[in-house]
Amino acid sequence: MFYHDGKLQYNVRVDKPNPQFAKLLQQAIGGIEGEMRVCLQYLFQAWNSRGPKKYRDMLLETGTEEIAHIEMLATAVCLNLEGSSSALKDEMAMSNPMVEAVMGGRDPRHILSAGLGAMASDANGVPFNGSWVVSSGNIAADMHANVMAEATGRVLATRLYEMTDDAGMKDMLSFLIARDTMHQNQWMAVLEELGPDTHPIPNSFPANLQNENVAYSFISTSMDGTTASGRWTEGTSIDGKGIFTLEKAVPTGGEPMLAPADKEIHGQIEQGVKPDADFLDKVKDIITG
Amino acid sequence: MFYHDGKLQYNVRVDKPNPQFAKLLQQAIGGIEGEMRVCLQYLFQAWNSRGPKKYRDMLLETGTEEIAHIEMLATAVCLNLEGSSSALKDEMAMSNPMVEAVMGGRDPRHILSAGLGAMASDANGVPFNGSWVVSSGNIAADMHANVMAEATGRVLATRLYEMTDDAGMKDMLSFLIARDTMHQNQWMAVLEELGPDTHPIPNSFPANLQNENVAYSFISTSMDGTTASGRWTEGTSIDGKGIFTLEKAVPTGGEPMLAPADKEIHGQIEQGVKPDADFLDKVKDIITG
Amino acid sequence: MFYHDGKLQYNVRVDKPNPQFAKLLQQAIGGIEGEMRVCLQYLFQAWNSRGPKKYRDMLLETGTEEIAHIEMLATAVCLNLEGSSSALKDEMAMSNPMVEAVMGGRDPRHILSAGLGAMASDANGVPFNGSWVVSSGNIAADMHANVMAEATGRVLATRLYEMTDDAGMKDMLSFLIARDTMHQNQWMAVLEELGPDTHPIPNSFPANLQNENVAYSFISTSMDGTTASGRWTEGTSIDGKGIFTLEKAVPTGGEPMLAPADKEIHGQIEQGVKPDADFLDKVKDIITG
Amino acid sequence: MFYHDGKLQYNVRVDKPNPQFAKLLQQAIGGIEGEMRVCLQYLFQAWNSRGPKKYRDMLLETGTEEIAHIEMLATAVCLNLEGSSSALKDEMAMSNPMVEAVMGGRDPRHILSAGLGAMASDANGVPFNGSWVVSSGNIAADMHANVMAEATGRVLATRLYEMTDDAGMKDMLSFLIARDTMHQNQWMAVLEELGPDTHPIPNSFPANLQNENVAYSFISTSMDGTTASGRWTEGTSIDGKGIFTLEKAVPTGGEPMLAPADKEIHGQIEQGVKPDADFLDKVKDIITG
Amino acid sequence: MFYHDGKLQYNVRVDKPNPQFAKLLQQAIGGIEGEMRVCLQYLFQAWNSRGPKKYRDMLLETGTEEIAHIEMLATAVCLNLEGSSSALKDEMAMSNPMVEAVMGGRDPRHILSAGLGAMASDANGVPFNGSWVVSSGNIAADMHANVMAEATGRVLATRLYEMTDDAGMKDMLSFLIARDTMHQNQWMAVLEELGPDTHPIPNSFPANLQNENVAYSFISTSMDGTTASGRWTEGTSIDGKGIFTLEKAVPTGGEPMLAPADKEIHGQIEQGVKPDADFLDKVKDIITG
Amino acid sequence: MFYHDGKLQYNVRVDKPNPQFAKLLQQAIGGIEGEMRVCLQYLFQAWNSRGPKKYRDMLLETGTEEIAHIEMLATAVCLNLEGSSSALKDEMAMSNPMVEAVMGGRDPRHILSAGLGAMASDANGVPFNGSWVVSSGNIAADMHANVMAEATGRVLATRLYEMTDDAGMKDMLSFLIARDTMHQNQWMAVLEELGPDTHPIPNSFPANLQNENVAYSFISTSMDGTTASGRWTEGTSIDGKGIFTLEKAVPTGGEPMLAPADKEIHGQIEQGVKPDADFLDKVKDIITG
Repeated sequence: MFYHDGKLQYNVRVDKPNPQFAKLLQQAIGGIEGEMRVCLQYLFQAWNSRGPKKYRDMLLETGTEEIAHIEMLATAVCLNLEGSSSALKDEMAMSNPMVEAVMGGRDPRHILSAGLGAMASDANGVPFNGSWVVSSGNIAADMHANVMAEATGRVLATRLYEMTDDAGMKDMLSFLIARDTMHQNQWMAVLEELGPDTHPIPNSFPANLQNENVAYSFISTSMDGTTASGRWTEGTSIDGKGIFTLEKAVPTGGEPMLAPADKEIHGQIEQGVKPDADFLDKVKDIITG
Repeated sequence: MFYHDGKLQYNVRVDKPNPQFAKLLQQAIGGIEGEMRVCLQYLFQAWNSRGPKKYRDMLLETGTEEIAHIEMLATAVCLNLEGSSSALKDEMAMSNPMVEAVMGGRDPRHILSAGLGAMASDANGVPFNGSWVVSSGNIAADMHANVMAEATGRVLATRLYEMTDDAGMKDMLSFLIARDTMHQNQWMAVLEELGPDTHPIPNSFPANLQNENVAYSFISTSMDGTTASGRWTEGTSIDGKGIFTLEKAVPTGGEPMLAPADKEIHGQIEQGVKPDADFLDKVKDIITG
Repeated sequence: MFYHDGKLQYNVRVDKPNPQFAKLLQQAIGGIEGEMRVCLQYLFQAWNSRGPKKYRDMLLETGTEEIAHIEMLATAVCLNLEGSSSALKDEMAMSNPMVEAVMGGRDPRHILSAGLGAMASDANGVPFNGSWVVSSGNIAADMHANVMAEATGRVLATRLYEMTDDAGMKDMLSFLIARDTMHQNQWMAVLEELGPDTHPIPNSFPANLQNENVAYSFISTSMDGTTASGRWTEGTSIDGKGIFTLEKAVPTGGEPMLAPADKEIHGQIEQGVKPDADFLDKVKDIITG
Repeated sequence: MFYHDGKLQYNVRVDKPNPQFAKLLQQAIGGIEGEMRVCLQYLFQAWNSRGPKKYRDMLLETGTEEIAHIEMLATAVCLNLEGSSSALKDEMAMSNPMVEAVMGGRDPRHILSAGLGAMASDANGVPFNGSWVVSSGNIAADMHANVMAEATGRVLATRLYEMTDDAGMKDMLSFLIARDTMHQNQWMAVLEELGPDTHPIPNSFPANLQNENVAYSFISTSMDGTTASGRWTEGTSIDGKGIFTLEKAVPTGGEPMLAPADKEIHGQIEQGVKPDADFLDKVKDIITG
Repeated sequence: MFYHDGKLQYNVRVDKPNPQFAKLLQQAIGGIEGEMRVCLQYLFQAWNSRGPKKYRDMLLETGTEEIAHIEMLATAVCLNLEGSSSALKDEMAMSNPMVEAVMGGRDPRHILSAGLGAMASDANGVPFNGSWVVSSGNIAADMHANVMAEATGRVLATRLYEMTDDAGMKDMLSFLIARDTMHQNQWMAVLEELGPDTHPIPNSFPANLQNENVAYSFISTSMDGTTASGRWTEGTSIDGKGIFTLEKAVPTGGEPMLAPADKEIHGQIEQGVKPDADFLDKVKDIITG
Repeated sequence: MFYHDGKLQYNVRVDKPNPQFAKLLQQAIGGIEGEMRVCLQYLFQAWNSRGPKKYRDMLLETGTEEIAHIEMLATAVCLNLEGSSSALKDEMAMSNPMVEAVMGGRDPRHILSAGLGAMASDANGVPFNGSWVVSSGNIAADMHANVMAEATGRVLATRLYEMTDDAGMKDMLSFLIARDTMHQNQWMAVLEELGPDTHPIPNSFPANLQNENVAYSFISTSMDGTTASGRWTEGTSIDGKGIFTLEKAVPTGGEPMLAPADKEIHGQIEQGVKPDADFLDKVKDIITG
């Protein structure tokens, strides 16, 4: 169960409202790298957790913290939009070119749909999509999904940091960037706890049931004589369970052979799908009773 | 540039067609854990790569291999659907309960839309979504996205393996599971090459610009006196750049204070948004010319 | 069944084409607050209506009127785009900054995809989504959905009205705003006809089957000692069937306890999901026949 | 900022796990009528609130309560899925017809993607969509959106109640149905507080700026001589600001006249879009430098 | 402007309600091959038409007819759902296996969300998507889009025809199949009228501005020595403007060379993105004022 | 199976990077008229092909070529974005109006999410959607889908050609436009091969099973006395199997009559859905055991 107080986790200050930056901040709210995704991802992973219990508890803690991050960012969007519709109206009275300049780079739905508020969408106004919430039932896969989410999230936050000169916004982002540092470390800490035998994920699938001939080969599809060699083409594999090799891609399966389509599918007659008289008679019988 | 031959990378055999399993296989084609996602993800990462060149080359190789995996799975879907519409028609002549049983667990669009072919959608018929293709411009974030994609992809493939008794399908899946083993290792090999200073991602953002007070604290939002302690609450952080601590969540920001809405936004009058006479006069002047 | 004449329900005049305003108008066509949504919503409610018949008839009338509103707005978009690609071309010959200004605030797909026509999308180019069409089978819930759609629709139209100085566009919008006035009233008139016992919706679910202890309590999750009191914390409830009270949030359920995951799901071994020999033997038997 | 304890707001008990019911419950989590929508809708409305403050506070309270409802439902999904993959495996060993029956009515991604956990999607596996989160900046429009969401939500919950015989599930649903009762009342209480002049929404748009001729007319598009009369065709309008009338639909706008397409758009020559020599020369000049 | 009467264009009769068939019919309403798509496509093409006028008029006629087809199909869905929730309830009292059979093949949202009504979604419950509405501003491209929509639509209708034994449903479908026959012919008739110079589309782009070396070559990417020859590898091209040839695929562009990433993008340091002191100083100056 | 070399099919050169043009190019990558769609469409049609084999082979060839087109366009996007974030940063130091101009017309996610790379989305940042990939199982319907895709694709490419003065980009587009010329011809060549009896599609559905009364009538819904006559209202139909006629739209179906809703659906009591005592007793029995 969840509780709140009316305060922000960290101060949100905008020295000079900027509706364009409000649009950019939306990526950190409703974008695939944003806080709605990590918040819901950690909460669903917690709620779906079938053990060990300490991971469930931890996921619940951090999922709850992330709600406060969405709150901070939504507040930042609102503050960046302040006064922007009045300014807009004044400029609308001017010539078209100014209108064009003014509208450029804004999310028009910040005015039209949200009345100067934040929305559950990304920087292009594309709505948040629940498919981004990963909770796989495999703790290691989930932890990698979480590291990845925090990595792309921190990259996003540093880019937002570069794109503003507003000291208030930089202060808020330096807080969020630090939290992403912690959260990256946190999920990696779980992977460390899970130990060296984590990979390949899932580690519960018996190795001998996979096709062991190709489990540690880098397969090169390149036709120009070169291949991309590196750590992945020689030495012990990272999971410690194989030796990397380098193989040229060759087809070992034949040409696929599909049966002709059933006539009920109604391809073209030219596809060899001819209606037979019996079938039609039967259909007519049914219709005429 | 790309080339093909008409053969499959590995043999695809279906001993006993099963349209329900065709539906399940769609998750491995057009689902978020599926092959379309990894294929496009590696190709876009390659095409967007601004160095080092060897990673671009490697991404191109593996992206190209994944096209062949989609091809194998599409073939498997087609083979599992063979004969299924004829069977359906016969059963349609029977009583409703049988129809219900027959239709249960199928994707009806395999018949209605694809004429017994594979589709670019997941196991629920939800279309593939381009937002899943992650190419961030940060090589480490991308590698984590790739590990995560292969981890959830291999988990998916092992579950599909459990859900079929068809020896042909098990053989194909044991090949794909092995390739996922390699690909997990491959992306981790890049991370190993990138070295111990990979984290926090991006490692190009100066540490002192983040709020260092909270960069290594596990913040607990729990109200019941317990907290989820573990590797992430003590010791050196995984990135080696801080010491984990455990902190109780406290708000350090005040209550958010937004300005009243501009009147042009047209909230309700009760929100303090009163139309002023001047404004209205001006508008009327414009209309009446 | 439906008919048309070639005329517009109300005059659509654009004094000075403005491609930025064309983009804004798209919200009123294909946005969640737009006319495609109300049109389809009323028509589906009519087609799905299982009585009383007079509401079906009324929904059909207003759904049909709304097609004419989409037509008016599509015409307005087309007129606002006139001449805009020529202007664009001329400006493309100039320096980049002008191009940037010119493209700012436009929907590029108005040129690229629609050839200066209207599209079935919102002001950000996000396509219309059928999930917005609400037809619940409960007449009162549907009427509230309709009031809500017309309320957000009228708010949108007033904002569009503020954002243009084009007298023709203001005239068209003043017509559409007035129709939204009527339609809000119309759906409220149905609610009035349904009478005072409309709530809670659905009113056909026996009150005693709900948990009556919490049916009229405002539950406060606030931790800072204050709560948001108002009409909803005291007095008779609006539906006349209870007394409002104010309660502090307390968990009455225990901690959730899920069973360990089945091993077929392939979590990690560390999650307690160990492959057992028997199971593997059985699987191998199947494969090896 | 937000906090949690590890307990459920209300007890979640499943007497007999039923994976089909787990699928149905997903509608109450990630469907348009579900708890993710109301939760995020109330929180965004709170975060975007520009006054009066008491409504912001109240929205924050109830938005926070709704997180606990998602938690309850996610737990219910997990409990309904327990043991279901083992059962599945056993049945997979049997003949196809049983498999068909078993898979019928299940969400296959509960196994394939979520490993027997809840997902952020609806009963058909369609992901949650951020466009459903309505926060318009107009308090009355928002309250109607909230009444509507709780009305369709309570209808959904009563239907789920009918579709299960599991006493535990019925008990949980009777709690959620009761909370929907309260929440419907709560948003109506705000509308009552806002007073009789709430409509038409927004009430801040001057009545004389709308086309007053059609602000209170029911316009009938019916061609068969009948019209749907009722409360909405006579008497004072519900907002008290007009008199309902009944009008036959007549077009007052002419036939729309669009200018020919610009040639740069590249319609067909037959559309009157002929390339002129000058234009082509200019283009060639540019290319050949 | 649009009008209606309360009658159906053609009789809709269901002899034996079948909720599974209701689900299949949804594909013909809200699927990509369905009537919502063609209806909106023809109407938007009409509204966007910039001449010749006779095509605008024709598109308006047929777009209007299609509304009546959605109406018929929605009615068919409703009739197929009649009585199905009662039956469901009775079966719910029985053992799980029966429930599974009963739910199999149904759209659960027909009960949960629509209360036994039709929805704006496809046979898998995926919502209608506005991106499917093609109106390109090029009359020939639009006509091909229309032929394609009617071709896939008629294929869908014939498959639905095969999947029911209900004489009423077969009768309705035989009407819709015939209308698709007409509509395919109708759009081809426009193409015939446009004349032999229709292709390549757009025919207003000067042939000499395209790379004429590759405008009529079939480029073979096959590596196994065979190529797919046919009408497209020899003879005059279908548009009469070239001679088909067969070419082996060879890369004529070099290896792509992208510049290193800007450091503000924050790739990894290992990507050559090193923070420089000056840059950081400048940022710090800004922050510390 | 698939192979690659590291070179481009045709040279991609950008003389003057332009991030606005990068945004426009996205439509040709991830838009509905773009190369991802045709690439996947041809590959799925090949993989699903059940004969004749030569079409399968040809589809595989051209699907493979299209991967190289996505590669070219992704490279073009990357080159157009070069240097654009540095420029951005400098301008961010200036006054807001410049920022507005600079951001205008850009896709912010090119910086925020992709780090100056291409994305799997359209010119508005809307993600690629798998529903666009048409593979119907009917060869003629598929060929029409392909002609349509290449027609709208070539229209898009010519519009992009008009919108740039960059000689490098014009050169690349003149190559892609030429390939679209070939591909339009190629799919029409298949239709020519299939012969004159291709229509109506599917031609395998017996003509006498459709309602022959309306198979060749243009039905006019127009109420103003005029109808849109043309080739489609007289003469032999294009498929050669009927005579076009012109008919006035008249309803031949009656008014739809739906049964009252089942009470388990929980409409409002006013809809005639009254809870009966027996039913409630039974439910209570179940709950109380």
